[in-house]
Amino acid sequence: MRIAFGIAALALAACQSPAGSVGNIPAPPEGNTPSPGEVIAASKPEEWRALDPENTLYMDFPQGRVIIEMAPQFSPNHVANVKTLSREGFFADGAVTRVQDNFVSQWAQAADPARPPKKGVEKLNAEFTLPRNAVANFDVLPDPDTYAPEVGFVNGMYAARDMTSAWLTHCYGMVGVGRENDENSGGGTELYVIIGHSPRNLDKQLTMLGRVVQGMEIMAAFPRGTGDAGFYKTPGEYQHYADIKVAADLPPEQRTPLEIMKTDSASFATLVNSRRWRKDDFYRNPVGRIGLCNVTVPVRAATPAS
Amino acid sequence: MRIAFGIAALALAACQSPAGSVGNIPAPPEGNTPSPGEVIAASKPEEWRALDPENTLYMDFPQGRVIIEMAPQFSPNHVANVKTLSREGFFADGAVTRVQDNFVSQWAQAADPARPPKKGVEKLNAEFTLPRNAVANFDVLPDPDTYAPEVGFVNGMYAARDMTSAWLTHCYGMVGVGRENDENSGGGTELYVIIGHSPRNLDKQLTMLGRVVQGMEIMAAFPRGTGDAGFYKTPGEYQHYADIKVAADLPPEQRTPLEIMKTDSASFATLVNSRRWRKDDFYRNPVGRIGLCNVTVPVRAATPAS
Repeated sequence: MRIAFGIAALALAACQSPAGSVGNIPAPPEGNTPSPGEVIAASKPEEWRALDPENTLYMDFPQGRVIIEMAPQFSPNHVANVKTLSREGFFADGAVTRVQDNFVSQWAQAADPARPPKKGVEKLNAEFTLPRNAVANFDVLPDPDTYAPEVGFVNGMYAARDMTSAWLTHCYGMVGVGRENDENSGGGTELYVIIGHSPRNLDKQLTMLGRVVQGMEIMAAFPRGTGDAGFYKTPGEYQHYADIKVAADLPPEQRTPLEIMKTDSASFATLVNSRRWRKDDFYRNPVGRIGLCNVTVPVRAATPAS
Repeated sequence: MRIAFGIAALALAACQSPAGSVGNIPAPPEGNTPSPGEVIAASKPEEWRALDPENTLYMDFPQGRVIIEMAPQFSPNHVANVKTLSREGFFADGAVTRVQDNFVSQWAQAADPARPPKKGVEKLNAEFTLPRNAVANFDVLPDPDTYAPEVGFVNGMYAARDMTSAWLTHCYGMVGVGRENDENSGGGTELYVIIGHSPRNLDKQLTMLGRVVQGMEIMAAFPRGTGDAGFYKTPGEYQHYADIKVAADLPPEQRTPLEIMKTDSASFATLVNSRRWRKDDFYRNPVGRIGLCNVTVPVRAATPAS
């Protein structure tokens, strides 16, 4: 028994211990690691990109504005349909109708009966994965992952890939397209965001629309629904938003200009490695590993044009 | 370049693909997998254990009762101190004073200035890890993990170990002991619970007290604090609880009898494997892996004595 354990442990150690060789994990920085604020302060303007207003959604709740960056590279048809739905007024007077603890907040029309789309559609073919070689801009995170052979970032979105495919992953804050059992039954009329420990077993089973880049503190703090799967039992519990608007459809003075740190930048690599090897007055024992969904992609208010 | 990639990919595949050999991942069940409810319904009474009232804390909020099972195997001195603090009335009229989105809800005395403990103490030596061989009851989860060579469960608590040590992990719902920079500055007068994507880089850096087994839908839905690190800026924002009581100190009729599924039971193994290979009318593409913090340890109302 002891020998059998020893062999198993050695196999584990070769694959998984911090001394192991999965990926190319950078060496720890010398001394204490910088804080995210310090890394951001030292970054260069060209290491950030502005949100594209044509690719950005605003959901205005009484609690504040929630901002979603969409990922048309992965789900072009769903992104186009959501924009069409927005522009025909489909999302007006909508609401969060489901909040399941440690899982999702989900939103839809609050109307009963729901109004059907006029120009947009209710159902599209699934956009779960892309061919691996169609995603040249995959920024690898070398740390091991439970669910996928390789993980990383694609233009700021959490992603994974194997030998044949690439896909977006269900990390905290990622937005997906609700569907029925039929894989091709979602279209964007119902959307959800991950509000708990990232349910990565949903990867490749649902179409991802993008990521919440502002307002997760609103989306994650709604009262949990007490119906099946966290649906609110009564319309009186719904959490209403005024509309979902494409940022480009608002006059510039009503937009919220944000910048995202580029995930292929040197500052982002510095940030990831400083969290992987975090060592400061509080953290004494760096683990030398970081999980994909434990990485925070920095977002900041856009710097005024000089 | 292509050759270098091929070698790296092979190494990854050997360690990490679902076809790989890390641990001994059970084969997929035939056909569709049972739901958790079905596994629970088919379980045997002896696969459950009742919460020990001497090892259980109640926090009664206006929203409902939050129940914590403590882990004295890992933090005997902190558990004993928290019970002493409870019994001297230290926790009366306390409040959640910090809620940082995707991180923690933290609670403490709401009094200003805080009352010092009379019988309990404010500071204890850290209880971060145990010697590996002191934890014989480690139920292994064979799936790969980003942060530790091996993960699993110890009496229902999320845990990890390496060649020398074992420790509890910062999964969603786990409760830890707040401290200052000094590793020996925590004692249990301030506690926190994980409310977002599990921050596993905290493992072995803080003493773990136990796990919330009822009421996470309360702890995770408080408004997020807008001060530094999610602290509420004003006492008016505090989320008050009446007290923290040891269940054994309440008369039986005021207790909430719960049972936890044993993590060394056949039903728990069935449950984990059915989620690892989840396949049903909605989930079509089983991944064959499950993350430690993605496993839910079942809790149910205790069955009345027959």
